[in-house]
Amino acid sequence: MLRLSSNDPGFAEAFARVVADRRESAVDVAADVAAILQDVRERGDAALGELTAKFDGHDLDQSGWQVDAETCRKAFGDLDPTLRSALELAAERIRAYHAAQLPEDRDYTDAAGVRLGATWRAVDAAGLYVPGGRAAYPSSMLMNAIPAKVAGVERLVVVTPTPKGEVNPLVLAAAHLAGVDEVWRVGGAHAVAALAYGTERISPVDVITGPGNAWVAEAKRQLYGVVGIDMVAGPSEILVIADAQNEPRKIAADLLSQAEHDPTSQSILITDDAAFADAVEQAVETELTALHTQATARASWETNGVIIDVASFAEAPALANALAAEHVEIATDDPEALMKQIRHAGSVFLGRMTPEAVGDYVAGPNHVLPTGRRARFSSGLSVLDFMKRTSFIQLDSAALEAIGPAAVALADAEGLPAHARSISVRLGQ
Amino acid sequence: MLRLSSNDPGFAEAFARVVADRRESAVDVAADVAAILQDVRERGDAALGELTAKFDGHDLDQSGWQVDAETCRKAFGDLDPTLRSALELAAERIRAYHAAQLPEDRDYTDAAGVRLGATWRAVDAAGLYVPGGRAAYPSSMLMNAIPAKVAGVERLVVVTPTPKGEVNPLVLAAAHLAGVDEVWRVGGAHAVAALAYGTERISPVDVITGPGNAWVAEAKRQLYGVVGIDMVAGPSEILVIADAQNEPRKIAADLLSQAEHDPTSQSILITDDAAFADAVEQAVETELTALHTQATARASWETNGVIIDVASFAEAPALANALAAEHVEIATDDPEALMKQIRHAGSVFLGRMTPEAVGDYVAGPNHVLPTGRRARFSSGLSVLDFMKRTSFIQLDSAALEAIGPAAVALADAEGLPAHARSISVRLGQ
Repeated sequence: MLRLSSNDPGFAEAFARVVADRRESAVDVAADVAAILQDVRERGDAALGELTAKFDGHDLDQSGWQVDAETCRKAFGDLDPTLRSALELAAERIRAYHAAQLPEDRDYTDAAGVRLGATWRAVDAAGLYVPGGRAAYPSSMLMNAIPAKVAGVERLVVVTPTPKGEVNPLVLAAAHLAGVDEVWRVGGAHAVAALAYGTERISPVDVITGPGNAWVAEAKRQLYGVVGIDMVAGPSEILVIADAQNEPRKIAADLLSQAEHDPTSQSILITDDAAFADAVEQAVETELTALHTQATARASWETNGVIIDVASFAEAPALANALAAEHVEIATDDPEALMKQIRHAGSVFLGRMTPEAVGDYVAGPNHVLPTGRRARFSSGLSVLDFMKRTSFIQLDSAALEAIGPAAVALADAEGLPAHARSISVRLGQ
Repeated sequence: MLRLSSNDPGFAEAFARVVADRRESAVDVAADVAAILQDVRERGDAALGELTAKFDGHDLDQSGWQVDAETCRKAFGDLDPTLRSALELAAERIRAYHAAQLPEDRDYTDAAGVRLGATWRAVDAAGLYVPGGRAAYPSSMLMNAIPAKVAGVERLVVVTPTPKGEVNPLVLAAAHLAGVDEVWRVGGAHAVAALAYGTERISPVDVITGPGNAWVAEAKRQLYGVVGIDMVAGPSEILVIADAQNEPRKIAADLLSQAEHDPTSQSILITDDAAFADAVEQAVETELTALHTQATARASWETNGVIIDVASFAEAPALANALAAEHVEIATDDPEALMKQIRHAGSVFLGRMTPEAVGDYVAGPNHVLPTGRRARFSSGLSVLDFMKRTSFIQLDSAALEAIGPAAVALADAEGLPAHARSISVRLGQ
């Protein structure tokens, strides 16, 4: 854990190093992934079967290529009632928040008599990558699948690796609840290739979202343009801005809720009270011992954790904007005032009763958020990731008389005579 | 030019080949581009200067790294008055259309007492690539720069190659009109690298848009995630759906307005009247002879042009959806009825008086549109490409009591105890 004070002479340099630290694996898998994509593109299911046997250790022809709808329905039915209610509450709240995001079509005629507009439509089919193993979260299934269904996607396809053939019943239950249409037992870069290019068994999709390892992320990047993808994701992070009116153990728990995800996660505390900072530092030690995720959380906190003492919270927005963190929690008396000055953040959690984890599960907004300073230019997952807009234009003779000659002048200036001609021939010239 | 009839026994296969034809260069520049990006990242302006001398044949220290604002202002002032008015009309209409696109913030409290919302903000800085030579269009400058400024981007930076030091005054005039803040005389993959990573002279930007050659496109693709980018662009295309009530020479002009862009452009006509198809085919020959862009237009039409005879326009929407064309012109009696059934298109031009070229210049909607079937999953350039959304959540004690326990149950089920703890510690448990 790194302790900084904005009064220190070397603070600017030390903080700049924190901002610049990518915490991302430098493994270059581009060539390996390119070969896998090519293989699946050329050999389809044969390649998919061989790669699954190699990486996941099971034979798809024996274990089954798909998990059928009845198995997902049964997984949901078999849930402990408390957990089933929790999942239903989460799904309902996520659905409501994303339904309110649906964009409106436009259709109007302007003063020149030109009819203009835009129509939003869902993509025909979307693919969702769901990791196996440690990162197989039912909440992640809901957060990716529900926006697609709310957008109006007719065919929603999940691919998920099932190492040694084992599936995660919680994830299947969430797939049932979210209305997923197909679940395929394939993972890795080859599963992403199958979604993009299609194979004999799997029809291609238009958009691919969802988290994955370095191979999956690189496959999505290489297929960007063949299909749409969500943002490239890196290690996740939280910035907590907290004053001394908070209980140290609560803020410690918030910092550790990020740290327990992965050793590459990052938790940063900004506070205006050095004694409170000390108390949080101590509370983190106490809290850590109670966690069965202690090894991961401790590795993250010790390697990437940062506590920054500032003289005043007036310094916080500039620091927050430089970090452009995925999650920003503001536990102060007037969180609104600080939020207004923070331009770059994935999601903001306001006040002392809004721990970031409520946003991970049940608040409603999406928990798929830009990491690694990408909040400077990108947004959390939304219905828009599963939709596209078609603009339209309609002129009558009078409108073409009004604005056509300007287009002719510009086309001539750009040296494009057929452009000019397509207009002038309609102006009776 | 390929002539197809939907009655032909081999039609489905022949049409599938048209759909599958990418018309894109197979040149693999990935390794070359990766080396250039690395070089600019490490050596900054020194690399930029050397690469500019090599590719554009001038010394930036002598010819000047930047075009100053006064030069752009003067280029605008020196325009022929007709052209200046045309450019002003275009800018005004583009600005109005894009201003109406600005998304609304949300802030509401739901039945559970949870305050939820989202705030849209512009990125701090955007970079715009403007090609030199044949594709240096002032209309393209307006279509990229105005949405950025309407979105609220404070710093808008243009990079453009100036072979042998020569600049295009029309493009500078458009930069002045659009409110561009900086113009740098650099191009190619190295200019894109400079925008993404920054150099000693050029501060980095958050988003890069604009067309370019294969090197520029590959540089943008490789830098996706370091910065935001607009869609990967390929050769452009038009689909014209026209009945026999149109004058053949008008439809021929529309087809050629796409063909004259580049030999890789594609123009497709769907009509329900074989005699009209013949007449258009003849009119294309006549029109071609009048164009100083004849060589390009003829190459495009002969290589990529397609005329499809259908028995009825009821067949047209399925064909249009498979093509997912950048531009779709519907010159029939009831264009609205067909538009409603076309799900995948960049922009639609309705009726007999709306040649696509009015959309290239003055109608208002953006002319930067998805090509190569990407309208299945992506949209034309808009203010949203220069903005990002931050969600926010605020709970009080009662709201946390209402939805917190469900989050605890889910966190426990996912094996994330610190997530659960950050909530339960606030529930007084």
